[in-house]
Amino acid sequence: MTDKKKEFLNLGSPFGGQGAEWIEIIHDLQDKICSALESCDGKAKFIEDNWEREEGGGGKTRVITGGNVFEKGGVNSSVVFGKITDAMLAALKIPPSGNGGSWWACGLSLVIHPINPFVPTVHCNYRMFELYNEHEEVIDRWFGGGTDLTPYYLIEEDAVHFHQTYKNVCNRFHKNFYADFKKTCDNYFVNTHRNNERRGIGGIFYDHQRELPEDAIFSPQQGETDAAFWMNFGKACGEAFIDSYILIVEKRKNAAYNKEHKNWQEIRRGRYVEFNLIHDRGTIFGLKTNGRTESILMSLPPTVRFEYNYQPKPGSEEDKLVQVCLQPRDWV
Amino acid sequence: MTDKKKEFLNLGSPFGGQGAEWIEIIHDLQDKICSALESCDGKAKFIEDNWEREEGGGGKTRVITGGNVFEKGGVNSSVVFGKITDAMLAALKIPPSGNGGSWWACGLSLVIHPINPFVPTVHCNYRMFELYNEHEEVIDRWFGGGTDLTPYYLIEEDAVHFHQTYKNVCNRFHKNFYADFKKTCDNYFVNTHRNNERRGIGGIFYDHQRELPEDAIFSPQQGETDAAFWMNFGKACGEAFIDSYILIVEKRKNAAYNKEHKNWQEIRRGRYVEFNLIHDRGTIFGLKTNGRTESILMSLPPTVRFEYNYQPKPGSEEDKLVQVCLQPRDWV
Repeated sequence: MTDKKKEFLNLGSPFGGQGAEWIEIIHDLQDKICSALESCDGKAKFIEDNWEREEGGGGKTRVITGGNVFEKGGVNSSVVFGKITDAMLAALKIPPSGNGGSWWACGLSLVIHPINPFVPTVHCNYRMFELYNEHEEVIDRWFGGGTDLTPYYLIEEDAVHFHQTYKNVCNRFHKNFYADFKKTCDNYFVNTHRNNERRGIGGIFYDHQRELPEDAIFSPQQGETDAAFWMNFGKACGEAFIDSYILIVEKRKNAAYNKEHKNWQEIRRGRYVEFNLIHDRGTIFGLKTNGRTESILMSLPPTVRFEYNYQPKPGSEEDKLVQVCLQPRDWV
Repeated sequence: MTDKKKEFLNLGSPFGGQGAEWIEIIHDLQDKICSALESCDGKAKFIEDNWEREEGGGGKTRVITGGNVFEKGGVNSSVVFGKITDAMLAALKIPPSGNGGSWWACGLSLVIHPINPFVPTVHCNYRMFELYNEHEEVIDRWFGGGTDLTPYYLIEEDAVHFHQTYKNVCNRFHKNFYADFKKTCDNYFVNTHRNNERRGIGGIFYDHQRELPEDAIFSPQQGETDAAFWMNFGKACGEAFIDSYILIVEKRKNAAYNKEHKNWQEIRRGRYVEFNLIHDRGTIFGLKTNGRTESILMSLPPTVRFEYNYQPKPGSEEDKLVQVCLQPRDWV
């Protein structure tokens, strides 16, 4: 383990062993995913920016640009903490106790924008959150996460492969997870100002998970506590990223495309910007609570086009994508 | 007067003569400004989309694209009204009366994105708002507006010309207007998540203006009521747009530029997108209260670039622009 990594692990230690365990999971995922993306790209390498947050903690921002395959992408981890503020409680919809207290969070956040319009954009985020009272005792802890796909052209077998991969992971933990988390995802990534058009074709999304759910499936290796169950689930989903996404990239990265395909990709990237800046809770929360702007906004696509009232021709390949964003489909 | 225009005027009439007068001002400004921009461009013409709003009213969206000079721009008018909702009162920070009532608004909103990175982007907005009680009596009326400039390269004489033009207009109405409204503008167009960097070099901005201010300067032609004073001020500012902006465009539209200049313009356009989607009250209010999305988002630039942590070289022309956005200057 490098010194840098130890330092970040130490940031978790005042808050007990489970925080430290989750940090280890997150940093391992970050390493594995970055390696897999670099191999797939074959040219570009991630650069790493380590940053610190004045109020507590920091992060490792890893960015890849100008690759053979990836035009821009970020795979970021952060371990952040601080005193509870009223603004934060309001954002979390928790009534202020007036007793002070503190919070801690650690997560992985990833967005990849490929060059080729036939390769989808992908996003994932896995995070753990803890709140403490004034005596530094844990008073709340929850987990959230998910992975979702944003294609520019709909290739049905890719959509099925992506969803099937996460269904398989979900089924190892709970028979209802895939159906529930797929629905949560479809209901979250919505441009309400665009006739409820989804950002893409979804995936899974879950939040505020605290307890072992009834009928949970788990082996002793998957942990004996509520937190261990959700850590293992986050870890398994995070590891599935490689299968779920990179297999699609390998299949499509050499697909021929022309200027019109690229224009369409840039117009759809505009919708991605709109969702992230207008609706995404994480982005807005980060920007309004003194998060590191450059790390948060690495999610924005490299080149974007905003055309007035652009409407693809009904029945075209472009229109097919829009229709599936307007009406989410069951893929598996 | 065309039938279409009469129809929009009629939309104002239930609410008394002053609404109708303001609508006339707005539509005249829209016509004059569009003609001036078309002459300056020499190639592209505005297309007009007339739209109606289910809850009441509608607008005339005029868009210019692919010109010799203007890459994308919109000059929109709207006359909209409806029943007061709690969401609207909350947005306006007015406590709910529980007695119903209605509202009416009419305004002009303009954003022009030129091709040449040495020609600035410009925005202006002039609007009138009325609230009525359940008996359709006016219970509140206010005016707001302003014009601001977003250059990509700082050309000091252009900045001075722009500010001087509005100072001259302001001075015809009140000795403090320019200083006050320049400051309000500098304090409004702020990317708080970017170290309080301003969107551009400002101009003037005013809001919630109800009464004739003490020491107002006005002639009988400028009206004898509070509303007439503010209508005349809005009209004078709107008419000054042509001098303030088009003279700059004429001077710079043939300036030589290269790929690096264009890249920098696209990066700065990214900041424009960030401000409009994260912070601009009008944009967010419109998108969240069922405004016409395509008319609201015509403000977004045609092509945009988001690069991770791009920092211009200290002392470069690009850096000079950033510095003046971080530290607003007194131009006149």
